[in-house]
Amino acid sequence: MISAGTTLRTLRERKPLVHQITNYVVMNETANATLALGALPVMAHAREEVEEMARISGALVINIGTLSPHWVDAMVAAGRAANDAGVPVVLDPVGVGATTYRTETAERILANVDVAVLRGNAGEVATLVGVEAEVRGVESIDVGGDARELARAAARNLRVVASVTGPVDHVSDGDRALSVANGDELLGRVTGTGCMSSALTGCFLAVKPEAPLEAAAEALAAFGVAGEEAARDAKGPGSFHVNLYDALAALDPATLDDRAKIGEE
Amino acid sequence: MISAGTTLRTLRERKPLVHQITNYVVMNETANATLALGALPVMAHAREEVEEMARISGALVINIGTLSPHWVDAMVAAGRAANDAGVPVVLDPVGVGATTYRTETAERILANVDVAVLRGNAGEVATLVGVEAEVRGVESIDVGGDARELARAAARNLRVVASVTGPVDHVSDGDRALSVANGDELLGRVTGTGCMSSALTGCFLAVKPEAPLEAAAEALAAFGVAGEEAARDAKGPGSFHVNLYDALAALDPATLDDRAKIGEE
Amino acid sequence: MISAGTTLRTLRERKPLVHQITNYVVMNETANATLALGALPVMAHAREEVEEMARISGALVINIGTLSPHWVDAMVAAGRAANDAGVPVVLDPVGVGATTYRTETAERILANVDVAVLRGNAGEVATLVGVEAEVRGVESIDVGGDARELARAAARNLRVVASVTGPVDHVSDGDRALSVANGDELLGRVTGTGCMSSALTGCFLAVKPEAPLEAAAEALAAFGVAGEEAARDAKGPGSFHVNLYDALAALDPATLDDRAKIGEE
Repeated sequence: MISAGTTLRTLRERKPLVHQITNYVVMNETANATLALGALPVMAHAREEVEEMARISGALVINIGTLSPHWVDAMVAAGRAANDAGVPVVLDPVGVGATTYRTETAERILANVDVAVLRGNAGEVATLVGVEAEVRGVESIDVGGDARELARAAARNLRVVASVTGPVDHVSDGDRALSVANGDELLGRVTGTGCMSSALTGCFLAVKPEAPLEAAAEALAAFGVAGEEAARDAKGPGSFHVNLYDALAALDPATLDDRAKIGEE
Repeated sequence: MISAGTTLRTLRERKPLVHQITNYVVMNETANATLALGALPVMAHAREEVEEMARISGALVINIGTLSPHWVDAMVAAGRAANDAGVPVVLDPVGVGATTYRTETAERILANVDVAVLRGNAGEVATLVGVEAEVRGVESIDVGGDARELARAAARNLRVVASVTGPVDHVSDGDRALSVANGDELLGRVTGTGCMSSALTGCFLAVKPEAPLEAAAEALAAFGVAGEEAARDAKGPGSFHVNLYDALAALDPATLDDRAKIGEE
Repeated sequence: MISAGTTLRTLRERKPLVHQITNYVVMNETANATLALGALPVMAHAREEVEEMARISGALVINIGTLSPHWVDAMVAAGRAANDAGVPVVLDPVGVGATTYRTETAERILANVDVAVLRGNAGEVATLVGVEAEVRGVESIDVGGDARELARAAARNLRVVASVTGPVDHVSDGDRALSVANGDELLGRVTGTGCMSSALTGCFLAVKPEAPLEAAAEALAAFGVAGEEAARDAKGPGSFHVNLYDALAALDPATLDDRAKIGEE
């Protein structure tokens, strides 16, 4: 069953711990988005503690936005520990395709860790399924083509739930595909909103681990609705960014499903 | 004498440099809080420069929120250099108890560095004095029990001024204990507000190093009053967060003592 | 020709990728400033990928605000790769003079990388040209003296375009000197605004690499005008900071030249 409102209500009751190994640029942002939504973020990246932290968490979010070798080793170790403990893993392959190192790192993680949900923009996901794509740094670029088919292909090839975000998001487990039509174009004007959507995917997955397809779509719908609210009084990307946390905290489980535009496709 | 207003006035005249070795998540936040208050923040973490930086600073704030071995070595080195130079040290044991690595690191720092003020939430401080506590990641969880006694026990056992923050804060040097009843519940909805309170403790301590008990309580009162102001027009955690910097900059030394709810207990 | 409006219009059409190896404190801020202006930021610091990233970028911005040996090695490698590929390099020597390590690092970068624009405050630039200066941490302190002559001396000695920011900015290539009289004092109350001005210098340089003197001055004028707009409704440093992104995004190429106070001196 798809109900972002029900999952959000459960999340706020349980307050799951969401372990995030993420990039320097957005750590504060994804922590605050997690907290505003109602879950508990924890950032820990040292090889010395990531396995222990991952095991006690409700979900693990791995984000490769700013990489270095020690961090990559810790990501793999944390991912494996999460797998052993039955903790679902989200991978955000930020900027994959932009450099060889990023591509190899994402492939290494996918080869060693059982990823429940892969959340990326179309260019990143296309790179991982071997489709030629323009990736310019880490910001999303329209790759054209059929994002729904891309999600389906990524899900099948990589054996994940693929969550491809863009003007309309497409989430697929290889068989079924869901579209999410919430959001606002200002989300593209603030850095780290993609990373936030991955963090929130981790939050939803922590309380609905048995249904990653639905959890991923619900997370994007919740984030998109918050984005719509945030855009209302925004004068630009700065005030939009601030409003976004207010809107995440104000999300009402009772009305969320009415606003969520999730469709089977 | 306890007077947050007087100390704040002195701070704004002297603009002490406050060296912070802190976590990736909140660096921008604690730097901006320090600057908004009227002191000068500097973040430096390399083993190659921390001793030199600590020596020229008015206070050193060590925060273990995101750890790795090189950083821990630098924290200890900086702490010792600060001790040698008579620069007061604040320790924020973020998330201690959540993993073995964090607990061992906090213990190592306490064993090697003369910490003037230990600023943590009840769960963190309880862990360090050996009381069983629930620590979930890095966010504060109500541990119940008697926070005042916890502060007193921590001060005695660890030979520090213990500053235990929560709905009411308790600061103790082992003999005396002060309570601080300022603040707003929105402080718990923004990540890094605990870290900010540690940074501001460093700012106050830099201009009142001879009275760490009073300086720690005054810092929390000033931060709490700013939190009360910030909550006025806040629509949620995002706008509250923004207002908090405005409120710190607008703190008026002339009226601060009227609003500070510091009590001897 | 000097026209901040024309360069901004070109920038928004081309959306250059601006590679930034910068400090932990301001990464989110400089990324968002870059994005708000209309360029594409990318943060990457690993030795494993910086050369590849620098080569595909329109400009490289190196900022030494939070240093460690691996990062310094990567800065030098990225700088050389940028030089080889004809990608202009901006250096922001944050806090140089505060510690020996920072001074040596800035000197090492200047010795190994062909820097197009050196953007710093007067204390930092004075340190690099051997003038005695008070540097307290990383925040700008008035060094007195003649900033215009400082810019000229730095340009000649270090063979760069020197961009010295302060109440009035001075940019010189050693022969010519331009002053920029835009901005607001609130820029000094938010950490990382100097780093943002370096990032925006990289953005302008990416579309006007043949004229680094003009590009540097135009960037400062654009940033200063945004600062003036941001100050209008600001209640303090927090709201000013938020407004700054809104103002950068709202900068109008058609009217920017009327507001830019760039003078030949």
